[in-house]
Amino acid sequence: VIIALDAMGGDYAPEAAIRGAKEALNSYPEIRLLLVGHTKRLEPLLKENSLLGNDRIELVHAEETVMMNEPSISAIRAKKNSSITIAASIVKEGKADALVSAGHTGAAVAATTVKIRTIPGVERPAIAIIMPSEKGHFVIIDAGANVDSSPLNLAQFAIMGEVYAKKSLGIQNPRIGLLSVGEEDEKGNSVTKEAFRLISAMPINFVGNVEGKVIFQKYADVVVCDGFVGNVLLKSVESMKKATMYWIKEAFSKNTYRIAGAILAKQAFKELKQIGDNEAYGGAPLLGINGTCIIGHGNSSPKAFKNAIRAASDFAKIKLNDIISKRIQETGASFEILRERSNSNGN
Amino acid sequence: VIIALDAMGGDYAPEAAIRGAKEALNSYPEIRLLLVGHTKRLEPLLKENSLLGNDRIELVHAEETVMMNEPSISAIRAKKNSSITIAASIVKEGKADALVSAGHTGAAVAATTVKIRTIPGVERPAIAIIMPSEKGHFVIIDAGANVDSSPLNLAQFAIMGEVYAKKSLGIQNPRIGLLSVGEEDEKGNSVTKEAFRLISAMPINFVGNVEGKVIFQKYADVVVCDGFVGNVLLKSVESMKKATMYWIKEAFSKNTYRIAGAILAKQAFKELKQIGDNEAYGGAPLLGINGTCIIGHGNSSPKAFKNAIRAASDFAKIKLNDIISKRIQETGASFEILRERSNSNGN
Repeated sequence: VIIALDAMGGDYAPEAAIRGAKEALNSYPEIRLLLVGHTKRLEPLLKENSLLGNDRIELVHAEETVMMNEPSISAIRAKKNSSITIAASIVKEGKADALVSAGHTGAAVAATTVKIRTIPGVERPAIAIIMPSEKGHFVIIDAGANVDSSPLNLAQFAIMGEVYAKKSLGIQNPRIGLLSVGEEDEKGNSVTKEAFRLISAMPINFVGNVEGKVIFQKYADVVVCDGFVGNVLLKSVESMKKATMYWIKEAFSKNTYRIAGAILAKQAFKELKQIGDNEAYGGAPLLGINGTCIIGHGNSSPKAFKNAIRAASDFAKIKLNDIISKRIQETGASFEILRERSNSNGN
Repeated sequence: VIIALDAMGGDYAPEAAIRGAKEALNSYPEIRLLLVGHTKRLEPLLKENSLLGNDRIELVHAEETVMMNEPSISAIRAKKNSSITIAASIVKEGKADALVSAGHTGAAVAATTVKIRTIPGVERPAIAIIMPSEKGHFVIIDAGANVDSSPLNLAQFAIMGEVYAKKSLGIQNPRIGLLSVGEEDEKGNSVTKEAFRLISAMPINFVGNVEGKVIFQKYADVVVCDGFVGNVLLKSVESMKKATMYWIKEAFSKNTYRIAGAILAKQAFKELKQIGDNEAYGGAPLLGINGTCIIGHGNSSPKAFKNAIRAASDFAKIKLNDIISKRIQETGASFEILRERSNSNGN
């Protein structure tokens, strides 16, 4: 499996990317890597990591990098020679089986959408994230590929989320929920209300609106939402986890009894810390792109890069896109059909 | 202080409302209550709670109740004699100083907006919630009064949030942040991008976009967002808290060492559970309404009702609306001025 790695993307790139690449090469013998980035930056790092001359690595020069403060569109307008754009082109041309980037998410979405294009019938790609629930896991889709999703987009995310939950969580007939401000059918904003109507008409296991207050208790295996909402939710939960670990530490260090208790239960804290650890996944798939693309967390460590590379390799093998494509057709969820249905709803 | 209590609103109303009313009367001697609801339902409950004939209570009959599965507009269209609508009219007529409801939030927003109206210059009211941060507290506004806020609305929420943070958290010059998907100025959806421009132009301590990933680490004292996003965030965090308590319990009961540790640190768990306890606040103010209105949590217990009544009494006394009104003028954040500024931005 050949993976194109955007070596310049991420808060700690290119260092973390190169070290992650090295770990991946050591752990997964079937993987070859195309490292896309500025060769002047990458060559010294390869040398430092004893990777120079390694025949499972190839450097691909990219003159530019899309920076975090640039608009997403830079990837396809102002910086056509950026690492993410060149990496996307490589996948498009069939020179790599999958793409990994921990850089500017919007730029990765723009570059892959324009270069690789979406699965036929799919309008917009979406990021699917696996989250821990009280007694298992669930999928949030979209976790941030889009910031102004249409009802039609949300309906397609429902199908992509269903396929992903089946494959990644092994759930036979995933319950699909629409994230909203109340569980009643009438609750929601203008986009979710219309999405509700579209999703209701599809032959899937739609359980209706799901409120934030129950998502970790898992009333739905797939939670569908706009990428702005999903991203805020996902990151707030991360922030909450960090705060909770801080509060726990504070509470357990107040007096001798508590400190003794904490020492006895040391292992429990370690386990708690690991719940929802995003390093373990490394990255999330950008579903709906007609190719395999894994989006890493901006603050990806070498370990996260390694796991993202493994995820890309796994995804490239299971041919998820073929299943999504088939399911979009089966459920009448293609762009054209949904648009017609949406229009006939008076929108 | 006279409080109009929507006695029919809330998952456990009217029982929880009446028991909360009793607790409030016992604890706060300066309070008088107008209980609005169906007298046939309320009278037996008053009798049960030995409140019949109490001269600090008056029953006001309301033939109807807006149910959770009805649209918000019912409060002012189909059910003009609902408890929330009559309670709002009572405040409008000056017969009560404040309103408390734990019922249908949208209906409470609609009833108060139409009956009591907004503060001059303010287009839409917003719910302000106090949340715990790692080492303090911050305000989220809007936590669910609106589901499709305009950029102009968000700009006004910034001012109301500033006033609220000053008064409730005692912060001299609150840092105002706009919730978004990235900290860079360019990040956001169509609504937040325009809101960013409007808020930037106002003479307040605007710290720019705030990402979910730092909100509990408190980079902003006030986090401004649309009510759909705020509601999802607030409730997801509740759900996460519940899940975390479950995970902690599981982790600490796995073996004898951990159980012993848990017993030694028993008090620490109690303290953790109390962080962000919404019963303690009881309710959140609906800011921007030209009167005092406290929105309770749907699942309000008697204790939550009691605290919401206390909050209503406190708010009625501090004349927050006068300060908001003055601050809206000072900062050029009136509806008319913002609309003009927004139009000149090409929107």
